[in-house]
Formats: sequence, C-alpha cells, structure tokens
Amino acid sequence: MSPRKSSKVKGPLSVCVIAVGDELLSGFKTNTNSAWIGRRLGELGIDVVAGRLVSDDVDAIATAIADGLAQCQVVIVSGGLGPTSDDVTRAGLAKFAKVGLARDVHAEAQLRARFEQMNRPIKDSHLIQVDLPVGSTAIANSVGSAPGVKMNINDHVVFLVPGPPREMQAVMEAGVVPDLVRRRSTFVVTKSLRTALLPETTVAEMLEAWIAKNDQIQIAYLPSAAEVVVRLSAHGADNTVVSNVVDAAAEDVREILGDAVVGDAGQSLAQSVVSLLTAAGRTVAIAESLTGGMIAAAMTDIPGASAVVRGGVVSYSTESKHDVLGVEAALLEAHGPVHSGVAREMAEGVRERFHADFGIATTGVAGPTEQDGKPVGTLHLAIASATSEVDVTVHLRGDRTTIRRQSVVHALDLLRRTILGLPPGPEQIPFWHG
Amino acid sequence: MSPRKSSKVKGPLSVCVIAVGDELLSGFKTNTNSAWIGRRLGELGIDVVAGRLVSDDVDAIATAIADGLAQCQVVIVSGGLGPTSDDVTRAGLAKFAKVGLARDVHAEAQLRARFEQMNRPIKDSHLIQVDLPVGSTAIANSVGSAPGVKMNINDHVVFLVPGPPREMQAVMEAGVVPDLVRRRSTFVVTKSLRTALLPETTVAEMLEAWIAKNDQIQIAYLPSAAEVVVRLSAHGADNTVVSNVVDAAAEDVREILGDAVVGDAGQSLAQSVVSLLTAAGRTVAIAESLTGGMIAAAMTDIPGASAVVRGGVVSYSTESKHDVLGVEAALLEAHGPVHSGVAREMAEGVRERFHADFGIATTGVAGPTEQDGKPVGTLHLAIASATSEVDVTVHLRGDRTTIRRQSVVHALDLLRRTILGLPPGPEQIPFWHG
Repeated sequence: MSPRKSSKVKGPLSVCVIAVGDELLSGFKTNTNSAWIGRRLGELGIDVVAGRLVSDDVDAIATAIADGLAQCQVVIVSGGLGPTSDDVTRAGLAKFAKVGLARDVHAEAQLRARFEQMNRPIKDSHLIQVDLPVGSTAIANSVGSAPGVKMNINDHVVFLVPGPPREMQAVMEAGVVPDLVRRRSTFVVTKSLRTALLPETTVAEMLEAWIAKNDQIQIAYLPSAAEVVVRLSAHGADNTVVSNVVDAAAEDVREILGDAVVGDAGQSLAQSVVSLLTAAGRTVAIAESLTGGMIAAAMTDIPGASAVVRGGVVSYSTESKHDVLGVEAALLEAHGPVHSGVAREMAEGVRERFHADFGIATTGVAGPTEQDGKPVGTLHLAIASATSEVDVTVHLRGDRTTIRRQSVVHALDLLRRTILGLPPGPEQIPFWHG
Repeated sequence: MSPRKSSKVKGPLSVCVIAVGDELLSGFKTNTNSAWIGRRLGELGIDVVAGRLVSDDVDAIATAIADGLAQCQVVIVSGGLGPTSDDVTRAGLAKFAKVGLARDVHAEAQLRARFEQMNRPIKDSHLIQVDLPVGSTAIANSVGSAPGVKMNINDHVVFLVPGPPREMQAVMEAGVVPDLVRRRSTFVVTKSLRTALLPETTVAEMLEAWIAKNDQIQIAYLPSAAEVVVRLSAHGADNTVVSNVVDAAAEDVREILGDAVVGDAGQSLAQSVVSLLTAAGRTVAIAESLTGGMIAAAMTDIPGASAVVRGGVVSYSTESKHDVLGVEAALLEAHGPVHSGVAREMAEGVRERFHADFGIATTGVAGPTEQDGKPVGTLHLAIASATSEVDVTVHLRGDRTTIRRQSVVHALDLLRRTILGLPPGPEQIPFWHG
C-alpha cells in the first residue's frame, strides 16, 4: 500500500491545462505533460477540470488562455517557450493580456550564466526566451534554458511552463506547485493499492456494498493490462480525522479484496516481486517461450534486480527446449511444445542451470494462428522450487500483444503467490476494458 | 520505405478532437487516442486544428462539442461510450443537439449477437450502449461492444468513438476515415522512412540544403528513442504529378541519409530485422546481460519471429555467463562481466547453444550505479557468425530505462548492418530530445 499522502486545500481550486504544439495535434508526439500535471496536482488534492491542445499560433493560444480563465482560477500552459520562430506562447499570453513583451533583466543574467557555464556562445535568438509579457515574472528552469512565466490576472493566475518533460517538471516544482499549495485550506488524503488478475468490474462489484456505507470516501478504479489500481481519498478540515478515515478505509478495502492486492499503487507488479524476493533472500530464473523475454525484461528493468534475477532462457525453438533446458525429447515428441508438462520441465531446467531458488516458465500460443491444434491464447505456466512444482493453464483473449502482456502479469502474479505461500489466483482474465 | 499513400482532398477539412474521461485529466491514463487520430488523419492530408480533454460530465461534453463545431467542420469525440454510469458521451451529444436518446434496433441486434457468440448473458446495463441520440446512426465496432456514433449537424458532422484504443481504431477505420475521405478533393501523397542512431538535429541538418531546393515538399521529423521517422508529403490537383514528386523526393532523401535508413516508417526496427533474416533464411540467438531480455522480447513480438529467432539467454549473473554460455572463467576473473571480450564469447556461446546463424550479445552498465569501475552507460555489443565476429563499444547517456532502450536499438541496428554487410553505425547516441 502506498504511503499516505496528505495535503492542505483551501476550497476547490480549479485548474485548466493547455498543451501547445503542432506536433501534439498531428500526433508526432503524445501529450504526456497534461497527464503528469494531472497526477502531480491530484497528489495535492487539486483537480484539473479541463484540458486543451492548441497549435503554435498566437491567436489560438490567447483564446485558449481566455477560455481557461473563464472556467478556472489557474491556467497552466506547457510548450512553446523555446528560442525558435514557432515558440509563440509568451506572445500568446501577451496578446491575451494586451501588453507587450520586455526583456527580463534577471532572467537574462541567469541565461547568460547558463551558457557561460556550458562554454557555449549565446546568440540573440536565445535571448528571445527572456522576453516576457509585461507584468509577468520568470520562474527559474534548473535543467534548460527557457524560464517559466507567472502572470497574475486579478485573483486568477496563468503559468507558462516549458514543453520538454524534464524542464516542465523542474519549473512546476520550482514555481507552480509552491504557489498552488499556498492557495489551499482543507486537507485531502489519498491512499492507493494495486490488484492483479481481477477485471475492473469485479473489483468494483466487490467494493460496491462497502462504498455505499462509506460516503465520505471517494473511490477511483484505474485499470491497465490485467491490473487495477484502487484509489481512495477523503477531505475535511482536520488532517488527523481525515487521515484516520482513509487509513481505516484502506484496511477495509484490503481485507475485502484479499490476496488480489499485490501492493503499493506506485509499484509495478515486477517491483513487488523483486521486493518480495529480496526480502526473502531468494533468487529466480526464467524460461520463456510464449513471452519471449518479456518477463526477464520487466524484472531486470527494476534497479536492484541483479541481486535476485539469476537470468533466463528464451526458448523459442522447440529444439532449444531440449538442447538448452533439458526438456525430455519424448515429452516434446508426444505433446509438442505447448503443454503443461513441458512448462514444468522448462521451469525445473532453468532453475537448475542458473542455480536459482525458483524457476518459472511460460509456453503457449500468442497467435496470430493456432499451433499444434492448441488455440490462440493458451498459456501454460509453471514454477519449480527445490521442494515443489506448480503449473497453471490459462486461456487468454485478445491479439498477440495483449496475450503476451497478460501472460507476463499471470506469470509474475503466480510467482508472487508462490513466494507468499498462496494458491494460484483466478485462472482466467476476462476481456479488459481500458 | 512505406508504400506510397495517396488520397483526394476537397480543400482544407478541419477537425477538432475531444477526449473524454476523468482518468485523462487526473493523469491516470495518458491521452494516446488524440495522438493516434492526429497521425491517422495526417496520413490523409487532414489537419487536426484543436484538441480538448473534458471530464465525464454531460454539460462539459455538450459545451466542448458546441465549441468544436464553431471551429471545425468535423468533431471527433473519444471515450465515454461504455455501459457504466460515468459513460455519458452519448448523453452529452444528445444535450448539445437538444434531442433525446432512443434505442437503435440494428445496433441492439448486433450487440445481442456479440454476447451470444461469447456465451455471455446480456444485461440491461449493456444495452445502454445502443441508446443513441435521435437522428444519429451507429458505426459498427468489430472488437468491442460499444458502437461508434455519427451525427450530421447541417454540413458539419460529429463522430463518437470508444475510448479503448483498439476499439477507437476499429471504429475510426470502419466509419470515420471513409466518411472523411469522401469529404475531400485535391490529392495528398505521403511517404515516410525510418532512420536509426542519428539525432533529429543531424537528420534535419543533412536534409537542410535539399529541402531549401524542394519547396513543394513538406517534411516532418518524428523522433523516438534513438530513431527518427522522416515524413515527406506534397499535394496538388493531379495525383500522378504529386506521386512522382514524392517518389523522387523519397529517393533523394534515402540517398542523402544513406545506410542510416532502416526501412519503412510503419515497421519497427525489430520488424525490419525479422524481415531481413526471413528473406536471407538466417536465424539468430540472443545473449543479454544489460538488456535483460528486451531484445528477445522486441523480436518475438513480431508475428513470424519463430522462424528466425531460435531463442536466447538472459545472462544476468556473472556465473551464468560461464555456466550457461561458456564464457571463459579466466576472462571473467580478469576483466569482470562488462568487457568487449566477454560480449564476444557470449555471442559465440549463444550462437552455438541455439544452433543459430548469428549470435548477438549485450553486456554493460544500465545503472543506477557504476559497476566494476565501468561508468553507467557503458555498452559492449558483439555479433558472432560462423565466419566472423564484430564488437562495438558505446557510451550512452540517460537513466536506466533510457540506456536499456537505446541499447536495444544499437543491438538491432548492428544486427541489421551485419546481415546487410554494412560496417557498424555511429557509435554514440547524443542526448535525445523528446
């Protein structure tokens, strides 16, 4: 379960987010900034109520700012602050506010110092970035050259932040978040937990009766491939009271959802499994046919995985199941490579070869066509340890990519359950909305 | 190079895109639908001129549709078409159009047939999905239960498409794209090609002089981790003339960019490599330390990979490099696991054990901390065949995830170059903007 987050809120503070850039409208880049801003402000108990994508056009930006301020107290605009001719967000704000642009002396000094430090000559074109709308102030950008901009409009405020995500985040933390925190006064507390292998609708049904009796709690379900994050939140004037309400709610929800809860919302399932193995001082090796390296890739993406992941074999050809992993030729001959016994021998083989505590194996049919008479979506999973073996057969639905992704969740969750001494979980993933 | 795409355009057809969902505003999901729609319509020569993110709220949706139609001939709304109480996009359109909702008998029959086929009982709540605004028509959804919706408003049109990306795409192709194509009248032709291991600025500099002399061609650079897609397009009244212009341009650009061009923009680098291996009748096996299964996962994600990918070893522990891949103990003792000679022996070892034509290996330091005195970002790559060996050392920048992703591109591109008999490419990836 995630650490509880608490924050002070002064009534509802509404925020509109505008992302500027032709490359976002044309889909050459995906707008990840608005999502990051939504998540960051959500942690502070502040709602983003509307978003926009606008082109690199002065009038479009000015109109979007006007519309945003009509709807929200705070407007945050990302992108278009750089030195090139299509960076016109500062001009858009100036046009909206009916003011000119003027060079900010303090920001200019910082920019010149930055270029000196990098041993790069500064050009006139770079200085365009410190020509700010009259009446606005600069927000320092510690990781790039374009400063952010803050402009008060009566009791409302417009922030301009750079487009590159690292710079946007740096400017948000330096000058936007602290300002928004000062604008609040009741407390919001949130707590989240992550479940695996239950569809969103099942999680919602399990919690339906509890939610009906706990109307001070807001609940949100956030599904992704074969996982659902449950987010609980509450707000009120007394931080201790609200914290206790959310703590008690999280305990209730954890009990209702039982062993489908895999951990903290901020942790991936792979992270949870790496943590469990680390805590138990156990190691794993992975034999992958259907998943072709995806389980190993997911686990080795976690810093510190090298202490618990010994390695693995991507055993894509049938011969390699025998040659490299030692699966009996007679078994492969009799049943083909998609078979629960083959999965068991793969798990045992990889465990021995890598001297690991656990061996885990996948074999199945990802598609697009059936194999050896086994339908697309067939998945055999097995886990071997020094003392026991378990295998599970699952029937998955979806395209090749979906089947492979769901297989990874099934495999990691079976490993989690094995480490914890739990029985295998739900054997079938229904069709996922999302 | 991608097949040339040609399409007929009737003057500027302007499109606004609206994405509906609290989970998008709060950042629990990133809005990838608007980007996909922007790219897809860009291929047809149609510009998306504005985008919005709105909450699951009838009034907010109705207002966004009204604003969109004031600005654009076509409004496409994604999300909020499902069966749950927060799915209110149909109601939002009905409110805007000042009409009621009525059950669509044809769409109801299709939905019932879909549930019958899945052997699932249909509930009343599911049927809400076929209660459409009066005066609108359903667009079939071949991969999910919520149909799309089309509603003509004078000479303008509003489309509703589902939120899940696969369903959104299916409905776009079934009923939105064909309609938009009918609304056009000059020809737009686009052609794209994909490059690896050159930064966007270098690609742009290489093409600068050519572009200055070819002003009938529009060019766009679309970067992603260590790859850049170059998109060329032109438009005019005569399809043959425009096609010839773009064909000639693509030939020029391919020549200027040389062997950095890895293929068709629609193909991933992994797809290109699988195609090259398939065409050559050659197989590969992969030994991964730093990349921990990512190369195998990328290649085995391609349908048909089983014919050319024999398998691989994720050799994460130092001992497994000796035990499983046969790297000499003395070499590991002398130099540690991050060493070009170790990479070469890993490549040779995996090639032999999997009876493959090529063995490819990665070893290095992904971080977060240095290893055996080797800095974060060190990557040793090697490729072995029956007749030759090559190894390359690369110094990468970025965080753990970035280094691992760039390593996969380096490895696949080195394999591509080896198959084609080309020398290794640029050995260093500069810092990537994105």
